[in-house]
Amino acid sequence: MVNYDSKEWLRFLINFPKADTVRKLTPYMIIMGLYSLGISYLIIGVWQLKDTSDLRNISLMHSLLGFVISMLLVFRTNTAYDRWWEGRRLWGALVNNSRNLALKINTLVPEEHVNERNFYRFMIPNFAYALKNHLRGNFLETEFTETGLFKLYDLRQHDHIPNQIAGAIFNQTVDLQRRGILLPEHLIFLNPELQSLMDVCGACERIRKTPIPYSYSAFLKKFIIIYCITLPLGYVFSLHYLVIPFVIFIFYVLASLEVIAEEIEDPFGTDSNDLPLDDISAGIQATVGQAFPEARQ
Amino acid sequence: MVNYDSKEWLRFLINFPKADTVRKLTPYMIIMGLYSLGISYLIIGVWQLKDTSDLRNISLMHSLLGFVISMLLVFRTNTAYDRWWEGRRLWGALVNNSRNLALKINTLVPEEHVNERNFYRFMIPNFAYALKNHLRGNFLETEFTETGLFKLYDLRQHDHIPNQIAGAIFNQTVDLQRRGILLPEHLIFLNPELQSLMDVCGACERIRKTPIPYSYSAFLKKFIIIYCITLPLGYVFSLHYLVIPFVIFIFYVLASLEVIAEEIEDPFGTDSNDLPLDDISAGIQATVGQAFPEARQ
Amino acid sequence: MVNYDSKEWLRFLINFPKADTVRKLTPYMIIMGLYSLGISYLIIGVWQLKDTSDLRNISLMHSLLGFVISMLLVFRTNTAYDRWWEGRRLWGALVNNSRNLALKINTLVPEEHVNERNFYRFMIPNFAYALKNHLRGNFLETEFTETGLFKLYDLRQHDHIPNQIAGAIFNQTVDLQRRGILLPEHLIFLNPELQSLMDVCGACERIRKTPIPYSYSAFLKKFIIIYCITLPLGYVFSLHYLVIPFVIFIFYVLASLEVIAEEIEDPFGTDSNDLPLDDISAGIQATVGQAFPEARQ
Amino acid sequence: MVNYDSKEWLRFLINFPKADTVRKLTPYMIIMGLYSLGISYLIIGVWQLKDTSDLRNISLMHSLLGFVISMLLVFRTNTAYDRWWEGRRLWGALVNNSRNLALKINTLVPEEHVNERNFYRFMIPNFAYALKNHLRGNFLETEFTETGLFKLYDLRQHDHIPNQIAGAIFNQTVDLQRRGILLPEHLIFLNPELQSLMDVCGACERIRKTPIPYSYSAFLKKFIIIYCITLPLGYVFSLHYLVIPFVIFIFYVLASLEVIAEEIEDPFGTDSNDLPLDDISAGIQATVGQAFPEARQ
Amino acid sequence: MVNYDSKEWLRFLINFPKADTVRKLTPYMIIMGLYSLGISYLIIGVWQLKDTSDLRNISLMHSLLGFVISMLLVFRTNTAYDRWWEGRRLWGALVNNSRNLALKINTLVPEEHVNERNFYRFMIPNFAYALKNHLRGNFLETEFTETGLFKLYDLRQHDHIPNQIAGAIFNQTVDLQRRGILLPEHLIFLNPELQSLMDVCGACERIRKTPIPYSYSAFLKKFIIIYCITLPLGYVFSLHYLVIPFVIFIFYVLASLEVIAEEIEDPFGTDSNDLPLDDISAGIQATVGQAFPEARQ
Repeated sequence: MVNYDSKEWLRFLINFPKADTVRKLTPYMIIMGLYSLGISYLIIGVWQLKDTSDLRNISLMHSLLGFVISMLLVFRTNTAYDRWWEGRRLWGALVNNSRNLALKINTLVPEEHVNERNFYRFMIPNFAYALKNHLRGNFLETEFTETGLFKLYDLRQHDHIPNQIAGAIFNQTVDLQRRGILLPEHLIFLNPELQSLMDVCGACERIRKTPIPYSYSAFLKKFIIIYCITLPLGYVFSLHYLVIPFVIFIFYVLASLEVIAEEIEDPFGTDSNDLPLDDISAGIQATVGQAFPEARQ
Repeated sequence: MVNYDSKEWLRFLINFPKADTVRKLTPYMIIMGLYSLGISYLIIGVWQLKDTSDLRNISLMHSLLGFVISMLLVFRTNTAYDRWWEGRRLWGALVNNSRNLALKINTLVPEEHVNERNFYRFMIPNFAYALKNHLRGNFLETEFTETGLFKLYDLRQHDHIPNQIAGAIFNQTVDLQRRGILLPEHLIFLNPELQSLMDVCGACERIRKTPIPYSYSAFLKKFIIIYCITLPLGYVFSLHYLVIPFVIFIFYVLASLEVIAEEIEDPFGTDSNDLPLDDISAGIQATVGQAFPEARQ
Repeated sequence: MVNYDSKEWLRFLINFPKADTVRKLTPYMIIMGLYSLGISYLIIGVWQLKDTSDLRNISLMHSLLGFVISMLLVFRTNTAYDRWWEGRRLWGALVNNSRNLALKINTLVPEEHVNERNFYRFMIPNFAYALKNHLRGNFLETEFTETGLFKLYDLRQHDHIPNQIAGAIFNQTVDLQRRGILLPEHLIFLNPELQSLMDVCGACERIRKTPIPYSYSAFLKKFIIIYCITLPLGYVFSLHYLVIPFVIFIFYVLASLEVIAEEIEDPFGTDSNDLPLDDISAGIQATVGQAFPEARQ
Repeated sequence: MVNYDSKEWLRFLINFPKADTVRKLTPYMIIMGLYSLGISYLIIGVWQLKDTSDLRNISLMHSLLGFVISMLLVFRTNTAYDRWWEGRRLWGALVNNSRNLALKINTLVPEEHVNERNFYRFMIPNFAYALKNHLRGNFLETEFTETGLFKLYDLRQHDHIPNQIAGAIFNQTVDLQRRGILLPEHLIFLNPELQSLMDVCGACERIRKTPIPYSYSAFLKKFIIIYCITLPLGYVFSLHYLVIPFVIFIFYVLASLEVIAEEIEDPFGTDSNDLPLDDISAGIQATVGQAFPEARQ
Repeated sequence: MVNYDSKEWLRFLINFPKADTVRKLTPYMIIMGLYSLGISYLIIGVWQLKDTSDLRNISLMHSLLGFVISMLLVFRTNTAYDRWWEGRRLWGALVNNSRNLALKINTLVPEEHVNERNFYRFMIPNFAYALKNHLRGNFLETEFTETGLFKLYDLRQHDHIPNQIAGAIFNQTVDLQRRGILLPEHLIFLNPELQSLMDVCGACERIRKTPIPYSYSAFLKKFIIIYCITLPLGYVFSLHYLVIPFVIFIFYVLASLEVIAEEIEDPFGTDSNDLPLDDISAGIQATVGQAFPEARQ
């Protein structure tokens, strides 16, 4: 994620960092410019069509459909933003539940059960790191902290890793109850946090694996391309060669909306617009640690 | 569901897979083209109406109503998308609850109760498959896995099948409590997952059985058809025969929105835009299996 | 509710079932037509106003306000649809909770307690029927099934009937706990379903009893009427007698949106756009029955 | 709240009850009319500006910004409506929870504990009345029913009254548990209703005390006033003295939206658009009473 | 937060308090004015371009894109408002949970446990104050009330402070259960309030730390600036020097929307549009105190 100060307007105008849509769209904007130049040259220079040509009125189509295309694209971007924000909420929920689980375990499991306390102290952040990597399609051994009760070789790396970590936490918790360290009521007390682990995981997987329906996405792209390709045909009569920046700018606006939507609708990657999952995981590790007094010595 | 890479723009323009609205709308687009040709020929060639004809101003109606029709259709598509996405969320919830239920059962029911553990290991995925088939109006025996405690002939195939499977899971769980294998508190610990089975089922049935209100749908279709049919009447004066692609393209845009909405508002079928319920069910089967160590041997 | 196949476009164009807004609006459309005819005749035939009359420019108002009125009406219809859909969700929740309650009772109350089991088997569907009738302002004795533990004469018919049925279910459940048939924990296990009965009831009452604020509704109607009444004044100069179908169609579109909103915002009646509460109640009766093995013999 | 039949269109056109925005806006509409008359007289009669004056083109601004202002106002009204509806949902939740609490208490507290039963029978409606009055900034002793266990003089009238009533209900409930009349599990069974009392109270306070951000509200008002004040400058050239009703009507539409929003965003007062809190409180009193058999004798 | 009476329209027009966007935008509006003056002088006075210059038609772009920019900005402001309102809801939830927790503790912990009761009486408001300061990036010792069981020096001021306070509350509660003052069921009874503390904290942190995606924000600013900079180019031909107020006003409207969005999307600061966290914290302190009878003496 790019950190930025949203109030420095001037920097926005002259800066083009990697995440900027201008940078991504530059080659396409050049193509649109050349295409508009060609069309203008043909219509003005070669065919020398008059202002009364019917072709001029093709711009009626652009104003009639201008509203639909605008609205579709704005809704498209908003839907993508909603997914991005839902992803952020889910990781926020993971932060909350990790912290609450750590605070509860710290107070329910007496200090003499060093191994059991360490288990939670390390496995809760392990879940966050594992989920982050699972959503990115890999597994980083270096981000896994071993505990006396759960070693790296206990993980089957080709199975669903967050599922195994959540399973281990469930097992440990019921085991503590069997041994009488936790009361049966404590299981119900801990249940919201325990079950939220896999709930967050499943919801993130849902966002990552479900793009918007194919026919909707295909329709939108066809619509944008045809709309922009026909733009110079009508407007060249009133703008002549000025139609070139005109088309480039309109294309920039419409395509930016689609490009932004594509980028933010899967928010778990490592692009500059994606969520800062590394930071969030590290934050979970820090506050979970702070919940256990022994971690401070 | 069609899997696609949303960033390959060019392929979208030249590809017309089965899910594409162009393919579905082609016959109607041809009819609209012929109709526009006929109208144009009548007005230009036969009646030779002048540019000052009042008919020309009928296009005032199209610009005055252009906004309503755009907005109605964009909202229509968004409402349909919301149902599609709600369907996806529900199946995501089923994934989460199936996994959590498996993790909890694995840890609560000791390993020596082989039959009981197998019951959950197979009946949880059975519920997902049965719900999938129930929503598609059939029942596939081949997708049902028998367990020592529940056989295929225990199912009354003309009754509500997911209801029976959920009922069997409830019975088994209370039976385990009666036998002292589960504590009374464990019933409360398991309750969220247990009751979510029929909650997901009922919510999916709601989406599948409730189309948008008849009068709304009928109004929308009448509106689109009259709007498009009157289009060439006004615009033929400024576009002449160019009105034919003009009308076809506008019809394509408006009708696509309605067609996409119709396709995605019932997301549980087997069309190319529908949700990948087979994959999700298989995913449930896989991760539920991984929760039980004995399934790995 | 009208069942229909949303893909048969042609039938939508030529069919005018009772639920169609065309049918409801026909008298008003005729009045608008006659009114436009009168205005046109006065302006064209009697006063013979010229094209340069200021009156012509009154249509500037219609284009300036065209957007507000469209947006208000589309939002109005969407708000009404949201209520309709919330009503549907509530009855969906009633289905889910009725089924889960039946499944839980079946497994918790042993088979020898025939009367108690019958009580739930009949009282759960009784609640659905009673709520349906309560929302429609009546009470149908024929839709009430008596049980050994609750007779028709136990109901005070002038008091709140769903409240009494929910109360009876609460009483019976606590009674079973007092007699030791249910454990105290089971009360918590059953609580979500028990309290959802009156939650659904109260939420349905809220939808039924709360129309949108008066000043909003009054403003909208005044706006539509003035907007349509002034329409022919401006457009008659460019359309002459063609202004008549022009005004009728625009009135049809705007008024349809308001009429649809009025129809669907209270979804519990017996109109053709209302929710199929009879079918849903019968569905509850069927699946609740299937949950009890003794009901099948 | 005004009760009305939304289907009598004609009455809406000719009726101007107190809640109607026409009535509230009349003085301002007269001012706008006089102002437009003045401007028109200056431009047409005094300065005799020609049609080619640049001033005419100031109306380009009105069409360019027409969309923003419409959209802002429609969203403004919708946001206000959402608050109004949230207020209604909260009071609906209070109805549901009051009823469920009464049904549960009736069945859990045996009939011989007359005083305790009476306590809940009167204190639950007392909470609704107290909350209603608290939101209106007063306290009506006449709407408070004393019980054997809680007298009017137990209330400290300068402290937060709903908080005290909820506290008394909590105290009574825990006291019943201490005396063994309720089991510990019953506390959990009753918890959702108990804690919902202050949840509803806090949420209502939030709506009442939080207007939309100042800079948003100030911007909107400035925008509407400048937009309307500049309206006659441009349109007087095409409409001449017809600009007067033109400006009045556009002002009526835009200002109505803002006025409606202002009225409904705080829904707990006694205006005609506010929620019928008196009726709802009386309804709670009635159905809570019906839950206790002794109340019927 | 600025308190204001939303019905005094005149004051809104002539007042420009610190929160008003006019005040913030004045320098930029002056720059836009000078820029428009320069452009107008060049085009009218220096180059003396004719009305038929192609440049005039650049305004076609402004009307074609006028809808997209309006919609984007209105959605932008609404998204920011949603965050502001979510922030308000979260603090409303903190109010509710603090009150309910105080009411429950008061009734569950007998009066003789003076120290324990005081602990909750002071630590619950301490959490609110600490969260407020945490969100503002500081810690005010003066707003922390020490109790017999928790002193200021128990806080590690460089760690997460709300986390420590919530942890102390958890510890104290489980300790009361261990000592038999609370029953195990009471832990479940108190759980919703206990875990809500860190839930609110995490959700507020999420809002504060997550601005909208960089590429979206950068695109929006580039779009506004280019749109406004090109405005005088086209409109100078029809408005001449009147284009100066024209451009200033349009810039004011568009930039205000962006500025308002920037201000309200992080609602936890001390700006005039931010939420009144100090007042809310003081309110929590007051009502929590009122829940404990000993606090009144």
